[in-house]
Amino acid sequence: MTNETIQVQGMSCDHCVKAVEGAVGGLDGVDTVNVHLQEGNVDVSFDNEKVKMDEITEAIEDQGYDVV
Amino acid sequence: MTNETIQVQGMSCDHCVKAVEGAVGGLDGVDTVNVHLQEGNVDVSFDNEKVKMDEITEAIEDQGYDVV
Repeated sequence: MTNETIQVQGMSCDHCVKAVEGAVGGLDGVDTVNVHLQEGNVDVSFDNEKVKMDEITEAIEDQGYDVV
Repeated sequence: MTNETIQVQGMSCDHCVKAVEGAVGGLDGVDTVNVHLQEGNVDVSFDNEKVKMDEITEAIEDQGYDVV
């Protein structure tokens, strides 16, 4: 399992947390996803054989946020 | 039709706009509702015979925001 912390701009409220956690958590191969609103980052644990980082960042960007 | 501008704290993103507009707009007697994110307020047009201001403010507070 691979663990990454992704810096994300624009997440401002609990709705944003749910949007990002839902989008990333819905990807096949993602084990856990935790959004830290105050830190402005997202911890993701995933199987690198099943899902790549660019798919994860794309899922976040598709929700309207900027991956730094 | 009665028009009121309600000051609301905590609305930070488009999800918040949708949450407030959905909750207030779903009340029977509310004609129009417009959230102004930057100004931090909500314009509501409603039939005072069908819905009261305290029901409107309660709908906003139920979404997790503070009416000032």
